[in-house]
Amino acid sequence: MTDPRTQFPDLTRPDEAARLDASARQGMLTKPPGSLGRLEELSVWVAACQGICPPQQFERARIVVFAGDHGVTTAGVSAFPAEVTGQMVANFNAGGAAINALAQVADASVRVVDIAVDAEALTPAIGAHKIRRGSGNIAVEDALTADEAVAAVAAGRAIADEEVDGGADLLIAGDMGIGNTTAATTLIAALTGSEPVAVVGRGTGIDDAGWGRKTAAIRDALFRARDVRADPVALLAVCGGADLAAMAGFLAQAAVRRTPVLLDGVVVSAAALVANEMARGARDWWQAGHLSTEPAHRIALQRLQLTPILDLGMRLGEGSGAAVALPILRAAVATLAEMATFGEANVTDKSS
Amino acid sequence: MTDPRTQFPDLTRPDEAARLDASARQGMLTKPPGSLGRLEELSVWVAACQGICPPQQFERARIVVFAGDHGVTTAGVSAFPAEVTGQMVANFNAGGAAINALAQVADASVRVVDIAVDAEALTPAIGAHKIRRGSGNIAVEDALTADEAVAAVAAGRAIADEEVDGGADLLIAGDMGIGNTTAATTLIAALTGSEPVAVVGRGTGIDDAGWGRKTAAIRDALFRARDVRADPVALLAVCGGADLAAMAGFLAQAAVRRTPVLLDGVVVSAAALVANEMARGARDWWQAGHLSTEPAHRIALQRLQLTPILDLGMRLGEGSGAAVALPILRAAVATLAEMATFGEANVTDKSS
Repeated sequence: MTDPRTQFPDLTRPDEAARLDASARQGMLTKPPGSLGRLEELSVWVAACQGICPPQQFERARIVVFAGDHGVTTAGVSAFPAEVTGQMVANFNAGGAAINALAQVADASVRVVDIAVDAEALTPAIGAHKIRRGSGNIAVEDALTADEAVAAVAAGRAIADEEVDGGADLLIAGDMGIGNTTAATTLIAALTGSEPVAVVGRGTGIDDAGWGRKTAAIRDALFRARDVRADPVALLAVCGGADLAAMAGFLAQAAVRRTPVLLDGVVVSAAALVANEMARGARDWWQAGHLSTEPAHRIALQRLQLTPILDLGMRLGEGSGAAVALPILRAAVATLAEMATFGEANVTDKSS
Repeated sequence: MTDPRTQFPDLTRPDEAARLDASARQGMLTKPPGSLGRLEELSVWVAACQGICPPQQFERARIVVFAGDHGVTTAGVSAFPAEVTGQMVANFNAGGAAINALAQVADASVRVVDIAVDAEALTPAIGAHKIRRGSGNIAVEDALTADEAVAAVAAGRAIADEEVDGGADLLIAGDMGIGNTTAATTLIAALTGSEPVAVVGRGTGIDDAGWGRKTAAIRDALFRARDVRADPVALLAVCGGADLAAMAGFLAQAAVRRTPVLLDGVVVSAAALVANEMARGARDWWQAGHLSTEPAHRIALQRLQLTPILDLGMRLGEGSGAAVALPILRAAVATLAEMATFGEANVTDKSS
């Protein structure tokens, strides 16, 4: 598990000088100090990530949806059949999914990558980073071999590099995969020491009997994972999945590349927890777009010390919650970038 | 107080057939039912307001900032001097204020109207609906004469008509006026039977001594208003102000014109409470954009039975909280308007 493809360099932090400049500038803008609340904090964070004040508005925000199937669906853990994963990849590609509609409002573009869908890749481009067809049933077997886990993390890193090299100035990871909240919840429980019953949610809308099956699957997966909790790549192999491993690599590499990220819901946040283990401090480069209704999501964000921007009762995945939060991050940037100072506008500053 | 200019016709409700169509359509879109949370509810509301499903994306969202001074500032209730109101009108006009920056991100346009600034109007257009220079010090005297209150409500109605006739398909009211949270808090306390100490906030950031003066001014104004609580126009005259009266007329008339509104913070919500007294059911045409840090805001929204979309610790006014929420309303519309159904996308619906 010491493969160089899963070794991340020591991370630098967002720029402290730009952070201080931005914080000072918020105090000079024509409004009572602090009156923009969370927007002020977000604007300062963007300035620190970009290393400049005022920060620049995002010109190429990019959403990458990681698709993969999960063998654990055979345990009856989801309200939808596994075939939906591949069908939704086609829906993303055709522009008909929620994330396509939400990305348009947020002025972001969408890319879907087939990491582990249990079908032939829809197109060569979508399947360019494919690791395997489906991941193993984590209730009874490893999701991935050790080599596959390394390759999946490396795939996510490569995707982040492709996007940053292509000009992306803000990244969002999304997820698509029937059964993926089972794997995500297992990862969060393993890394936070949580009991299954405290973290298991309804996913896409499973009934009580299904919730019981899901909880049992997570309990069994956690038992299988008990000896690898300290090794993030091994953990991904034992009870994660190729899509989750790729997301983790993507999120860690975004931090390496000093590119800000808006996290989405429980699946992406599970990958983020693992990523922050692989690349300590990666969380400094992330904000939490929203709080989903999945119980494990709150626990993951608390561990990451991230406060969600939105709380709209969403539980879709695909990057949807982060996409809805993106205009708020744009609003924060706009205050620092566009507003006049007291001096510029000849407005009396109470502190002057 | 039975002037026809303050008499509103019985309101029609948003369209029930469109609401049902929209609700049914949310269940057909390619996502688990309910997984978009609050977005689904908002999308259904927009469809009902527009009377069509799917609803149309907003093409002309309009923010009108109502500016006015308040004589109660002489009692030392604000952290900023009264001259700032007029200076900020110039800042809005020049495009340098927070609402200008936030409106640009939200694809909305901004109009500022001088209803009662204690100065000559900046331009004839901005002053076209001006009622007077400043409103009276509500701690010791009426804010307005009865005639002025009627004229101010009528001015707000006329402004709403101008905007709807000009093509606005979504309206936001904003406020600018040093001392206006004192008048707004008084109105909310009067209409909800709240004690001053339970509702008085820090406004633009007043210190403890100022908070005490503000609370005393509100207590005195509430005492003066004790006999007019059941008469909304008289209440505006006794303890409101011309800007608040115009906002109330604007919000009520928006409902008459079947035009959806995003409410902003405590000042706009105080006007909304009064408007819903003048035109019962107007609240059906409104959503609460955000929850501000002013204690009275939560009380006003509870009375209106509106749940804020955002909670970002904002307390600026100007329509800023509503402007930040607007992209979320756009996202909601986009789901109904742009997403594919299970049938269209050949995705397996678990319920089929």
